[in-house]
Amino acid sequence: MIILIQCRDQVGLVAAISGVLAAGQMNIVSLREYVDKPANLFFMRVEAEQESDMPGLEEKLLRVLPPDAVVKVNPQPEKKIVVLVTKEYHCLADILIRHYFRSLGAEVLAVIGHYDTLQDICNRFDIPFHKIEVPSSARVLFEQQLEDLIRGYSPDYIVLAKFMRILSPGFVAKFPGRIINIHHSFLPAFAGAQPYKQAYERGVKLIGATAHFVTDQLDEGPILAQQIIPVTHSATAADMVKAGKEIETAVLARGLRLVLEDRVFVYGNKTVVFE
Amino acid sequence: MIILIQCRDQVGLVAAISGVLAAGQMNIVSLREYVDKPANLFFMRVEAEQESDMPGLEEKLLRVLPPDAVVKVNPQPEKKIVVLVTKEYHCLADILIRHYFRSLGAEVLAVIGHYDTLQDICNRFDIPFHKIEVPSSARVLFEQQLEDLIRGYSPDYIVLAKFMRILSPGFVAKFPGRIINIHHSFLPAFAGAQPYKQAYERGVKLIGATAHFVTDQLDEGPILAQQIIPVTHSATAADMVKAGKEIETAVLARGLRLVLEDRVFVYGNKTVVFE
Amino acid sequence: MIILIQCRDQVGLVAAISGVLAAGQMNIVSLREYVDKPANLFFMRVEAEQESDMPGLEEKLLRVLPPDAVVKVNPQPEKKIVVLVTKEYHCLADILIRHYFRSLGAEVLAVIGHYDTLQDICNRFDIPFHKIEVPSSARVLFEQQLEDLIRGYSPDYIVLAKFMRILSPGFVAKFPGRIINIHHSFLPAFAGAQPYKQAYERGVKLIGATAHFVTDQLDEGPILAQQIIPVTHSATAADMVKAGKEIETAVLARGLRLVLEDRVFVYGNKTVVFE
Amino acid sequence: MIILIQCRDQVGLVAAISGVLAAGQMNIVSLREYVDKPANLFFMRVEAEQESDMPGLEEKLLRVLPPDAVVKVNPQPEKKIVVLVTKEYHCLADILIRHYFRSLGAEVLAVIGHYDTLQDICNRFDIPFHKIEVPSSARVLFEQQLEDLIRGYSPDYIVLAKFMRILSPGFVAKFPGRIINIHHSFLPAFAGAQPYKQAYERGVKLIGATAHFVTDQLDEGPILAQQIIPVTHSATAADMVKAGKEIETAVLARGLRLVLEDRVFVYGNKTVVFE
Repeated sequence: MIILIQCRDQVGLVAAISGVLAAGQMNIVSLREYVDKPANLFFMRVEAEQESDMPGLEEKLLRVLPPDAVVKVNPQPEKKIVVLVTKEYHCLADILIRHYFRSLGAEVLAVIGHYDTLQDICNRFDIPFHKIEVPSSARVLFEQQLEDLIRGYSPDYIVLAKFMRILSPGFVAKFPGRIINIHHSFLPAFAGAQPYKQAYERGVKLIGATAHFVTDQLDEGPILAQQIIPVTHSATAADMVKAGKEIETAVLARGLRLVLEDRVFVYGNKTVVFE
Repeated sequence: MIILIQCRDQVGLVAAISGVLAAGQMNIVSLREYVDKPANLFFMRVEAEQESDMPGLEEKLLRVLPPDAVVKVNPQPEKKIVVLVTKEYHCLADILIRHYFRSLGAEVLAVIGHYDTLQDICNRFDIPFHKIEVPSSARVLFEQQLEDLIRGYSPDYIVLAKFMRILSPGFVAKFPGRIINIHHSFLPAFAGAQPYKQAYERGVKLIGATAHFVTDQLDEGPILAQQIIPVTHSATAADMVKAGKEIETAVLARGLRLVLEDRVFVYGNKTVVFE
Repeated sequence: MIILIQCRDQVGLVAAISGVLAAGQMNIVSLREYVDKPANLFFMRVEAEQESDMPGLEEKLLRVLPPDAVVKVNPQPEKKIVVLVTKEYHCLADILIRHYFRSLGAEVLAVIGHYDTLQDICNRFDIPFHKIEVPSSARVLFEQQLEDLIRGYSPDYIVLAKFMRILSPGFVAKFPGRIINIHHSFLPAFAGAQPYKQAYERGVKLIGATAHFVTDQLDEGPILAQQIIPVTHSATAADMVKAGKEIETAVLARGLRLVLEDRVFVYGNKTVVFE
Repeated sequence: MIILIQCRDQVGLVAAISGVLAAGQMNIVSLREYVDKPANLFFMRVEAEQESDMPGLEEKLLRVLPPDAVVKVNPQPEKKIVVLVTKEYHCLADILIRHYFRSLGAEVLAVIGHYDTLQDICNRFDIPFHKIEVPSSARVLFEQQLEDLIRGYSPDYIVLAKFMRILSPGFVAKFPGRIINIHHSFLPAFAGAQPYKQAYERGVKLIGATAHFVTDQLDEGPILAQQIIPVTHSATAADMVKAGKEIETAVLARGLRLVLEDRVFVYGNKTVVFE
């Protein structure tokens, strides 16, 4: 049993919450809490075991918490996702493999692209692939078709697995807090286009990748996970692209796992991640 | 205010503890807990703020906890340490510098060695240096003199900062859970003498360092912190020694910090580290 | 054009080799050399560009090198591999994906297992899967069938992608320097069975994986690549197994890439890796 | 013997250079070369052993190289440095310790600051400390006094060890390629003031440090070394400052070592680092 709580901070919250759990004879396996002092916000994630069912737990918790509290008891165990791609395969293939072997923690409902490069790999895993025929330059139509396709599946999350198109603020606003992107740099360095080319020209000694939620500010959304690898002077921009794929795959997998295991709270431009 | 609790696990511990704190109007800033299920042990570290003093907190907590509970409220803020060295300077110098600039979180009472190589650096920082004149081959006398010197200072912890002599089980038993060592390998690989030579001969691609508590089993004590760095085929054993110094210094500093900030529980051959 | 040279060390080798290349108007793009002084061995890897064909380059080089020299010019660009598996999918799936998208740098001829767990994923990628029906406890028969299957494909390398059976020295001797294994620990720590269980019981703060060539000494062969990830006290052995899969996949991919790009020399129990 | 060569690229350079060395019966211990193709530049670093002296080696090499070639034979083994500081001690102390134990590879001639916070630690190591009395707001006078002090020592390099003042392009131009800085972020992220505050506000999951040469573009000079450490949501800006000190110290030490061991070429805004 997983319990997520977010509310404004005040004295006695842990006692109030754990009191409710103890009254129900629930054994706390893991408890993580965090208080953002400047924001006066309290976050808690509890994993607990119980012998018998505990009806009305959410209501019991809300009764002892401040009025703004958001409580989730046993969030949906297997989320549903739709994956958006362009031509690069590495992040998508990693997701498809984990899905096929039932270690993703989510159901992949469909893959949507604007090239047919990745049609065949989806076929091999019996995942529907949809190609948007409208050119992405016709943004309004493009996004309309994309939205229609997504809405047809009602996913919990939309995963941009190297989707190399910028989504408009209007589009993003339709799926608030539900779009996850992998950006191929350690943000905020090298936001925008061609980060590896930028990295090569700057002569950095490490390159990175960032998984983040998408907001209406390009590459500015709340960060889930980041990782870097060292590079040397001898790495060309193409070498960096190749080496970067490995960490892009790893960082997106990690960011997704954190979200799908209900380990992430998002507030403002930040995340609380209880690993 | 820091509160440390260790006891056998049972339902309701968090509620009981946080109830006591809430009754005293204490605000929990940070709460970390861990249950070792196979061992049925509960560990908790709380950082809390209170407006006024709360007398008898330890007793109040003991009253709601199982009989085996160990509770520490506000453990001694600045521990006292004695440092044992041989000839290598890097770990000692790091400790002396942090001590001098008051960022160590401990008072360095004295340094003890069996060579006078590091006498001068201690002088420069006004730290007493004692040279054991008995040769270390005369182990009984050597350890007697070492023990006498240490006992003269009554330190909380004894830090082996590249002390290249093996202490007998009898000696170690006199300071249980109070001797911290830096071993120059990622244990359990390359326990014993000349780990870098072993690493060179094995052709490993990474070398490491381990900070651990000393028990009567050589290099087998509870691990505090570990770190590695990559090496290539071109690294000689001497190159590894040189590169290794950097992580030895960093890992010992980290292990010490964790202990000195009361972030570590030790049980059996393991540590719980609440960072 | 790639040129690999291994011979005993002597003065003037670089001049002799580069002289031959310059006489052929070849432009050196990258040159890496290493001398193991104690072993008196010289290793060199050159990437060069040439405008026209240079016939007899190997002979021209051998003429200026010591008699023991081994020279390879343009080693076979795409190696052929056979993959051995048990039930775990992660390393195999990574290889299949890279193969399918033509980024592996090798042709996967077949997969051989002793369970049919991974039959279906091979089918999906049109890779022959062979199940050994002899129980692995009948080692002689088991290895005979394995050898027959492998020999039917004449692979350059045999990749043990989480093949959880120990191959006999006799079997290994039939494919010297051609069997690559992923071991789920940072060798030499936790050699043998159940390394994560060992790691959990030892209370380490980092776990690792090692890609290495297989020799007749279990887990003692020349190391290609190693990597670690941090773990905390809260990681169970099962958590370590799960987290470890990620680095096992990454380390085997890296070790394979190095071998398949002709960046590795093996001598004695060591590797020279020119990245 | 160390030989550094930089020139425009052409066919036969390695043969020409190694031919000169072989003619002098020099044994190449280590040879590293790199060609920047877009820039058509060739870089080489050779470590060689010779039995007897080889007079005129530099001239012999220049004779076989393109006219623009820069050749350095046995660059000055122990460089001289002046260190500039503000109030933070960690980088300075690390340099002083290494200097004291003769492992820095450079002579520390003097330390210059604009506070007297670090006067005493310099005294303890018998290193002259100079305090600039002019307020740094009076930039022209401030820099004049700084320049006068530096010129009095004729250092090879000026090391900004957490010197929290921006030097004017005019000042920097007086010491081209000779000023090394540690910046407390993984550049180009968080250039400018208060990078940890910026990092905290952006909610990054890793923080870093960058050692680089100073040019007239603030935080834009050629990068020597970079490193990162992970951070979590619970790290305040102050926590990041504290954690960051550890990598700042390590990265500056590493960058300095690379320069002082003559492993770095600088061209345009980039470095070639032969480790």
